[in-house]
Amino acid sequence: MTITYTLDVSTSKVSSFCKLLLRWRGSLWKSVYKELFLWLCGYTALSLVYRLALNPEQRIIFEDISVFAYRYTDFIPLTFILGFFVSLVIDRWWDMFSNIGWIDNAALYVSTYIQGSDDKVRIMRRQIIRFLVLTQAMVFRDISIRVRRRFPTLETVQAAGFMSKVELSILEEVATSKAKYWVPIQWAMLVVHDARRDGLIQSHQAVQDLLQRILEWRSGLSRLSHYDWVPIPLVYTQVVFLTVRCYFLICMMGRQYVNNTDRNLDYSSPIDLYVPVVTMVQFTFYIGWMKVAEALVNPFGEDDDDFEVNWLLDRNLQVGLQIVDNVASEKRPPLEKDFFW
Amino acid sequence: MTITYTLDVSTSKVSSFCKLLLRWRGSLWKSVYKELFLWLCGYTALSLVYRLALNPEQRIIFEDISVFAYRYTDFIPLTFILGFFVSLVIDRWWDMFSNIGWIDNAALYVSTYIQGSDDKVRIMRRQIIRFLVLTQAMVFRDISIRVRRRFPTLETVQAAGFMSKVELSILEEVATSKAKYWVPIQWAMLVVHDARRDGLIQSHQAVQDLLQRILEWRSGLSRLSHYDWVPIPLVYTQVVFLTVRCYFLICMMGRQYVNNTDRNLDYSSPIDLYVPVVTMVQFTFYIGWMKVAEALVNPFGEDDDDFEVNWLLDRNLQVGLQIVDNVASEKRPPLEKDFFW
Amino acid sequence: MTITYTLDVSTSKVSSFCKLLLRWRGSLWKSVYKELFLWLCGYTALSLVYRLALNPEQRIIFEDISVFAYRYTDFIPLTFILGFFVSLVIDRWWDMFSNIGWIDNAALYVSTYIQGSDDKVRIMRRQIIRFLVLTQAMVFRDISIRVRRRFPTLETVQAAGFMSKVELSILEEVATSKAKYWVPIQWAMLVVHDARRDGLIQSHQAVQDLLQRILEWRSGLSRLSHYDWVPIPLVYTQVVFLTVRCYFLICMMGRQYVNNTDRNLDYSSPIDLYVPVVTMVQFTFYIGWMKVAEALVNPFGEDDDDFEVNWLLDRNLQVGLQIVDNVASEKRPPLEKDFFW
Amino acid sequence: MTITYTLDVSTSKVSSFCKLLLRWRGSLWKSVYKELFLWLCGYTALSLVYRLALNPEQRIIFEDISVFAYRYTDFIPLTFILGFFVSLVIDRWWDMFSNIGWIDNAALYVSTYIQGSDDKVRIMRRQIIRFLVLTQAMVFRDISIRVRRRFPTLETVQAAGFMSKVELSILEEVATSKAKYWVPIQWAMLVVHDARRDGLIQSHQAVQDLLQRILEWRSGLSRLSHYDWVPIPLVYTQVVFLTVRCYFLICMMGRQYVNNTDRNLDYSSPIDLYVPVVTMVQFTFYIGWMKVAEALVNPFGEDDDDFEVNWLLDRNLQVGLQIVDNVASEKRPPLEKDFFW
Amino acid sequence: MTITYTLDVSTSKVSSFCKLLLRWRGSLWKSVYKELFLWLCGYTALSLVYRLALNPEQRIIFEDISVFAYRYTDFIPLTFILGFFVSLVIDRWWDMFSNIGWIDNAALYVSTYIQGSDDKVRIMRRQIIRFLVLTQAMVFRDISIRVRRRFPTLETVQAAGFMSKVELSILEEVATSKAKYWVPIQWAMLVVHDARRDGLIQSHQAVQDLLQRILEWRSGLSRLSHYDWVPIPLVYTQVVFLTVRCYFLICMMGRQYVNNTDRNLDYSSPIDLYVPVVTMVQFTFYIGWMKVAEALVNPFGEDDDDFEVNWLLDRNLQVGLQIVDNVASEKRPPLEKDFFW
Repeated sequence: MTITYTLDVSTSKVSSFCKLLLRWRGSLWKSVYKELFLWLCGYTALSLVYRLALNPEQRIIFEDISVFAYRYTDFIPLTFILGFFVSLVIDRWWDMFSNIGWIDNAALYVSTYIQGSDDKVRIMRRQIIRFLVLTQAMVFRDISIRVRRRFPTLETVQAAGFMSKVELSILEEVATSKAKYWVPIQWAMLVVHDARRDGLIQSHQAVQDLLQRILEWRSGLSRLSHYDWVPIPLVYTQVVFLTVRCYFLICMMGRQYVNNTDRNLDYSSPIDLYVPVVTMVQFTFYIGWMKVAEALVNPFGEDDDDFEVNWLLDRNLQVGLQIVDNVASEKRPPLEKDFFW
Repeated sequence: MTITYTLDVSTSKVSSFCKLLLRWRGSLWKSVYKELFLWLCGYTALSLVYRLALNPEQRIIFEDISVFAYRYTDFIPLTFILGFFVSLVIDRWWDMFSNIGWIDNAALYVSTYIQGSDDKVRIMRRQIIRFLVLTQAMVFRDISIRVRRRFPTLETVQAAGFMSKVELSILEEVATSKAKYWVPIQWAMLVVHDARRDGLIQSHQAVQDLLQRILEWRSGLSRLSHYDWVPIPLVYTQVVFLTVRCYFLICMMGRQYVNNTDRNLDYSSPIDLYVPVVTMVQFTFYIGWMKVAEALVNPFGEDDDDFEVNWLLDRNLQVGLQIVDNVASEKRPPLEKDFFW
Repeated sequence: MTITYTLDVSTSKVSSFCKLLLRWRGSLWKSVYKELFLWLCGYTALSLVYRLALNPEQRIIFEDISVFAYRYTDFIPLTFILGFFVSLVIDRWWDMFSNIGWIDNAALYVSTYIQGSDDKVRIMRRQIIRFLVLTQAMVFRDISIRVRRRFPTLETVQAAGFMSKVELSILEEVATSKAKYWVPIQWAMLVVHDARRDGLIQSHQAVQDLLQRILEWRSGLSRLSHYDWVPIPLVYTQVVFLTVRCYFLICMMGRQYVNNTDRNLDYSSPIDLYVPVVTMVQFTFYIGWMKVAEALVNPFGEDDDDFEVNWLLDRNLQVGLQIVDNVASEKRPPLEKDFFW
Repeated sequence: MTITYTLDVSTSKVSSFCKLLLRWRGSLWKSVYKELFLWLCGYTALSLVYRLALNPEQRIIFEDISVFAYRYTDFIPLTFILGFFVSLVIDRWWDMFSNIGWIDNAALYVSTYIQGSDDKVRIMRRQIIRFLVLTQAMVFRDISIRVRRRFPTLETVQAAGFMSKVELSILEEVATSKAKYWVPIQWAMLVVHDARRDGLIQSHQAVQDLLQRILEWRSGLSRLSHYDWVPIPLVYTQVVFLTVRCYFLICMMGRQYVNNTDRNLDYSSPIDLYVPVVTMVQFTFYIGWMKVAEALVNPFGEDDDDFEVNWLLDRNLQVGLQIVDNVASEKRPPLEKDFFW
Repeated sequence: MTITYTLDVSTSKVSSFCKLLLRWRGSLWKSVYKELFLWLCGYTALSLVYRLALNPEQRIIFEDISVFAYRYTDFIPLTFILGFFVSLVIDRWWDMFSNIGWIDNAALYVSTYIQGSDDKVRIMRRQIIRFLVLTQAMVFRDISIRVRRRFPTLETVQAAGFMSKVELSILEEVATSKAKYWVPIQWAMLVVHDARRDGLIQSHQAVQDLLQRILEWRSGLSRLSHYDWVPIPLVYTQVVFLTVRCYFLICMMGRQYVNNTDRNLDYSSPIDLYVPVVTMVQFTFYIGWMKVAEALVNPFGEDDDDFEVNWLLDRNLQVGLQIVDNVASEKRPPLEKDFFW
């Protein structure tokens, strides 16, 4: 589920900052704590070995390795690559969200252009909406693990009311090895065509507008499936996720407090704090930043921050049908002078 | 309220720079002074402890910790993450502003395409405008704390003249657990449809154009509510706001003047200035930069720089009604030869 | 006035680089020399105090402060914030320029769709153009100090021929406390409506296209006034402009040549050059970069690089009227076979 | 073939990270291993020379060169230029993908607007689709080495069924030295024109919409060929690819373990690890990042991550024909009340 | 001429990298070699002075200056400003290229909507194309030095067949001090208007579409002339180009090998290589990067990478006329069943 915290940041005060920190779901703490714990275990193990198990000669080697690791972490510039990568991921994530598909535009146009309250015209209106949402369900099944789990087969989609049995059988008869997203879209367009032929739509312009709305719907969904099909190149994702972790693996050695012997080491800490405080802050910072990318790289997954696609499907079907049905009722504002007349 | 200072920077001179600095509302000073004061208190406390309360052995430990803190702050790269984050926030903020909704386009089209000065057609024109502004009020109630405070219930919206009592009751009858933003939009579209049916609109193209304007209005508002619903991922916001503050917490220790003893510390300042001048500049710089993000991350809140949404609602209703009414009057420029004929 | 230097850079040669450097108007030199001079005065004063006025003990303190300043300037990362800020300012500046409003599109459509050469139709064509340019003049008066100076009152706008006296009085009768930019736009739209009603425009499509052009014109201008009304948040501008100057204030102390005594200072320059050559280069570089932002943050001001809005107003009125009038003349290319037939 | 790994990253867990790493096709490992091996050979050779072949005086020279190389690599800032370059390449790559051309929109419009099931109208529908895909094949032949290999001549394109023999001969008769992409586009447009003339299309609006779809198709393809014709300036590509490799060439010397003699070298590693562990990590990191750019700079090539253009051509022809044929069949959802009635 | 190298990079292999390096036209080598040679001359001169001409005391001063220069170059952060500047330049360059104007869209629409093969209608079709290309020629004359050289006067444009003598005289009679780009555009629009009036165009929608295409053509060209008129602010260009060169001027001194005396200089190279190898790499890197910007800042100039505008003018005229003429011929694909029927 998307994590909304906008209300907490309505003013820029220290108190809103604190409220922001105290959240758990979708928070920094939740995403970082496991890996931080693992890292601390490794760090402690190494530290104990150094302090308790090694003899002086071995300690010298340990210290040399630590100094080596300390100095060479400089060569791995995390900040920069994370900055560029997170920017890229967020751009894609937001574009996906913008194309996720809300039925309102199409439903409002249908309800305005296809008037009438007899059964035939009501069915037509409802069919257009249903076919559009059905396409959405078909696309979502292929890109979202949650929707796939809810609808393992097309039969379950049918059972949920997105299509009738007849429609399902027609859909299955279409013989193609490629995706069939276009079939319900075509049905919707043909309903528009028929409505015009039967005089239920008043003008050619209305057809033009309705097809335009359906096209926009289709284009948004096809954009989603393209994002799913052509992700950020694997090399890039691997480079980023791997480098950040390698960095902290090296830090596990390089940030040890190794000033127990008499040698004067330029690069060691002047004091033995036992707990690597600053490195923990740094870890939280970098791993948290990376987690932003990890969570958003596939926003149709099951992270806290991912889109609630199942909810959206139900919402679209319900609201869409309601919008096109509402117009059949007689409950409309009367023509009367307003307050400011 | 938005802070306009464009006039002050009409030329790039030192004097305009000074004028810019002397502002208070929405300024750097106002956003930073509280946290800077808190930080200085902490810094002074630590400084006094070091100078007055500690014995030499404790001082050495203090100094070691200070040197440790001084050196390790290098590992926290604020600039970069702030740069990327502020860019992201500003992009979103400006896109929100661009979609905030000005009634002019819709009102001008309504006034051009739906001519006539009898009561019925005037009511129709005014209704379209009113329904659009009503949608805006409904959306703003859900995303802005200011508008929510002004209109705690739909009744108060009605009382303010955005809708009539009958309309409110119809609106409330619509049975749905989802947001009802689409209801007044549908009303507006149906008024357009009726006006065409009754011959008040001359052409199908006019209907097409009017629905297009209404659609743009709706899309802008729906974009706003999406921005509210899906903010920047919480992890990202937390990482940024937390890291900046952690950095200065560590600096509180690391930027102490600790050269009072005889030890030769490479990393300490060569001179004791008592006041951490440069760190204060740095604090103002980073915290100020971060405050840009904090204020803009929710521009519908109550910061100095946030959008004046209540003003906008009133403005839209007033100007919108005036535009569509103005066309009924007979006061229009006569057809006469101009100055350059 | 905009500074055009495109011709100088038509090839990438050393000579074109030199020609580029030798310009004065709108150049780096012109924007930097005053502040550089001020800074050099400060630097020289400090340098003279150190060399002539201080006794050895005071010199040591001076040197310590200088070393302190030298080292701590590292904490202020100018490059990064300037890079992001200048990017933002340039994006906004170019978007403003793109929306500044050229009458050609509207005028060409008017001249094509509204044919005829009798007085009435000529007046109509000219009125549409004039009303559009009038709106532009009204918007520019509010956002540009130059246009405001040329047209302190609406009467002066009228006197310049942008509207007739009757039009001015009608405009003034519109009772609103808000901006009246929409009034002439509405006039223009109503002329289109009347032309269609009187059969001067042949089709509904033509009305649609003409209104579209007028809408684009209005949207561009409204975008301009939004940019004026909601500038880059004040905090951001202050942070950037202040930090750059603070940096060089600290450098005034930190870049002194302080190796006159026998102390071995790691951070001082190995040689006394008297003139801070590299810091001057750095000053020119950073302040010049910042000046880009200072000049473009309000491109409707009075800097060398700002838009020539007064010229544009006159140009739009003249060219717009010429385009719509030209069509009335009989001077058009005859239908004859071309060179490549 | 495009590498899809979206499913692996549906949640942000350590296990999904591991699954991500274990891939081979299109992975970091596959792109880096060859060059890493070469680099290690060079490194080992130098190392052996130093350890076995040189006498003490030569060793000192070797060490000096190594220290020199170690220190001067700082002057080559890889991260930054790679960040900007990869951003640019990815933007272009994604824009290419977005314009690659899916026939669905055009086919759906054709099937809706051109109704009827007799042979003539079916041929017309199929011709439009075929001409569009033919254009795509012609463009792809010029920009993709894979398609060129599949279709070395236009005859092979004809043989694959994209056009008939007559069409090929007409195409070849068009006398021009420029690309002939426009010819099949014109054919498609003329079919639309003829269908309207013969009354198979009901309205002018339908013609408008169909031509619009064809235009979008053409614009996308022309954008692709522009990207092919005007790549990122050669200098930029050379600078980036060369610098990264130069950097590691210098590192081959600079990262040697040279502390075998008694000299105290500030810059050498405190311990001799024989294997340059951190540099290998760094190598994987930078070369991997650069490989992202190398693979995407021409996404119509033969890398693992490149677009499957041959598949797309076949898919477009097959699905396009199916869509327009499907409408001729009588298998359409009946008008019946839905589940939620 | 644009440098196309896409084929060379169709796979990401070491061999394609080598092929990339071996190019000369438009390459890094060609852009850098002259300035690198100049710089090496300066460097050698200084080096010889130091090694041969100076006595020991002078050498010490030389060395101090060298160390000073070495250390202070750190203050000039080239990478960052180059990154942002090159991004900006490339964005503008690509947008210019995208708006450069290809006649195909307009020609295809003209050929579809204006049917017929008698002389009058053929002339009309050809006139529209010719007027559009004429506008392009007029704009290009003002922004490209190459086109200006080919067409020093409007008479030469006429002589090349872009317009007839009558048209030229009408064009010259238009009395205005401003650019006359709009005149041929208006002619083209009026031809469309006349064709509709004479019944050669079947529908109002066709007029709408044709005017739209002409408008897009005009907007693209006007965008080009705006880019020419309002370049990147001069200050910015100067800052970037100057700083890069200043940096290497300082390096000329700072990268000398100055360890010939007995003094222990921390900052000098440990070994005397005579040739400043790494600095040469760095020079190639930075100057090459800068050359990207220098070449693209005015892509209508005469660099290797600049657009071939003369070729484009001829191509547009030739292809445009061919497209609209082709439709008059009877050579069109017959309606026959296709391969997959």
